[in-house]
Amino acid sequence: MPSTKSVQQSKTFNFPVQIYYEDTDFSGVVYHPNFLKYFERAREHVIGAKSLASLWDEHDLGFAVYRSDMLCHDGVEFADIIDIRTRFYFESKYRTVWQQEIWRPNAKKPAVTAQIEMICMNKNRQLCPMPQILINRLGEAFSEPVTF
Amino acid sequence: MPSTKSVQQSKTFNFPVQIYYEDTDFSGVVYHPNFLKYFERAREHVIGAKSLASLWDEHDLGFAVYRSDMLCHDGVEFADIIDIRTRFYFESKYRTVWQQEIWRPNAKKPAVTAQIEMICMNKNRQLCPMPQILINRLGEAFSEPVTF
Amino acid sequence: MPSTKSVQQSKTFNFPVQIYYEDTDFSGVVYHPNFLKYFERAREHVIGAKSLASLWDEHDLGFAVYRSDMLCHDGVEFADIIDIRTRFYFESKYRTVWQQEIWRPNAKKPAVTAQIEMICMNKNRQLCPMPQILINRLGEAFSEPVTF
Amino acid sequence: MPSTKSVQQSKTFNFPVQIYYEDTDFSGVVYHPNFLKYFERAREHVIGAKSLASLWDEHDLGFAVYRSDMLCHDGVEFADIIDIRTRFYFESKYRTVWQQEIWRPNAKKPAVTAQIEMICMNKNRQLCPMPQILINRLGEAFSEPVTF
Repeated sequence: MPSTKSVQQSKTFNFPVQIYYEDTDFSGVVYHPNFLKYFERAREHVIGAKSLASLWDEHDLGFAVYRSDMLCHDGVEFADIIDIRTRFYFESKYRTVWQQEIWRPNAKKPAVTAQIEMICMNKNRQLCPMPQILINRLGEAFSEPVTF
Repeated sequence: MPSTKSVQQSKTFNFPVQIYYEDTDFSGVVYHPNFLKYFERAREHVIGAKSLASLWDEHDLGFAVYRSDMLCHDGVEFADIIDIRTRFYFESKYRTVWQQEIWRPNAKKPAVTAQIEMICMNKNRQLCPMPQILINRLGEAFSEPVTF
Repeated sequence: MPSTKSVQQSKTFNFPVQIYYEDTDFSGVVYHPNFLKYFERAREHVIGAKSLASLWDEHDLGFAVYRSDMLCHDGVEFADIIDIRTRFYFESKYRTVWQQEIWRPNAKKPAVTAQIEMICMNKNRQLCPMPQILINRLGEAFSEPVTF
Repeated sequence: MPSTKSVQQSKTFNFPVQIYYEDTDFSGVVYHPNFLKYFERAREHVIGAKSLASLWDEHDLGFAVYRSDMLCHDGVEFADIIDIRTRFYFESKYRTVWQQEIWRPNAKKPAVTAQIEMICMNKNRQLCPMPQILINRLGEAFSEPVTF
């Protein structure tokens, strides 16, 4: 029976983020919405900032976060260099699901975990399939070919 | 059988937020982590910024977001004045759960919905019960007395 | 002798800003780049967010900060409600100069002062004169008619 | 005749910053207060984030921006990797002056230039001399010994 879901998980990507003054609040740790920024930076590195720019400029398409479910287990501090660990899978040609974690140096478990669903949309915010060139590019992160 | 959960929902609070340049990104709509900022601003108005400041300065306690689950249904644009609608309930003396929505002007359904769990912690990030004075203050938002 | 500079100062506008978690950093006070955000919010209220949106959408024009010179005299704290005081003058049809201050509650002198130069540009970032309709709108802030 | 000013300029430091969604606004370029963030990140790399953290935790001292004078000559775009160029000098034991520039890839002149004055303060926001250990650390950026 056909399924639109790719059961494959991508490999794991690692992306470092240094915590600056701008990231913290007066409680002494990172202000929680900033975690969503780091996750986005990490996704942009997986997808490629130039790919995203040309997706927008040439295809009139962009990604939007449809859902983000985040759990904050531990505080992250100024001067930390954290490791953002990112895996994703294709839910369909329209949607990718990203499993992302924040690890502090020498930690035994992640400080923050999140599952983030991204949809592909045109500039009128209508759902659109990802262009094949982008699917191919993202498909490089999988051990098996990605098909729908 | 005893339960630690208050089944009561608070009344709904409304809080307006104007969307400025700083809130948008080059896709033309609000950058999604900013929604978590607006939700926090709205919660601070429900709790009271001065209450939060004295909680921190006098009780050495603060609130931390433990979980945020957010769904983005629609884009929010520059110059919009959005309405943040906030309700909450007590899960326990340690934890409150906030149901928050973002409504654009004249919209028929919310642009963003979220459920956000807040825990009370001391400055060493240990879980602590909320002081009774704060429970009383928050309890004013309920039609029935809040008990545990 | 002809001059392109309007010597007139506008009246002073007051705009309140509440300081939230998001505004502070771990040093306990407002993170300094945020002051530029508050100044911009206050300018947007003087110009009108809807005016700015239609300037962009209908005239293909926007304002850009060309120069900002800011002095930070005092820290601003969580839960403060600060008063942003704004005056401006026309340097030419292309350029406005804004004198803005941040006042903490009951303060005897401003916590932050700034002079900010704004230029009018099209979407290709070329300098353009402000449309007359905008000059008229801004001109309402002056006791004498604004002419060039 | 004695002078408190060190006439020496430090060497130039280079620091790359990638521009993400979070950095832009709906006009399509970087939102101007973010430039002050990049300058701060670059200064933190010169000083050392760990040095700043221990300055705060062990000496109860921090740096504050007293003045920032910034000129924006050109827009900076999504996906750019900009080069932050930083030089500084000691004005006194209390104050350093930072000359910082933002260069876009392959640019012939800087997109943004700034002069930023930093003062050393204790947690009560009183002006304090920098500890000798920090002066020595910063002094490594100069070809001649730094003396006052």
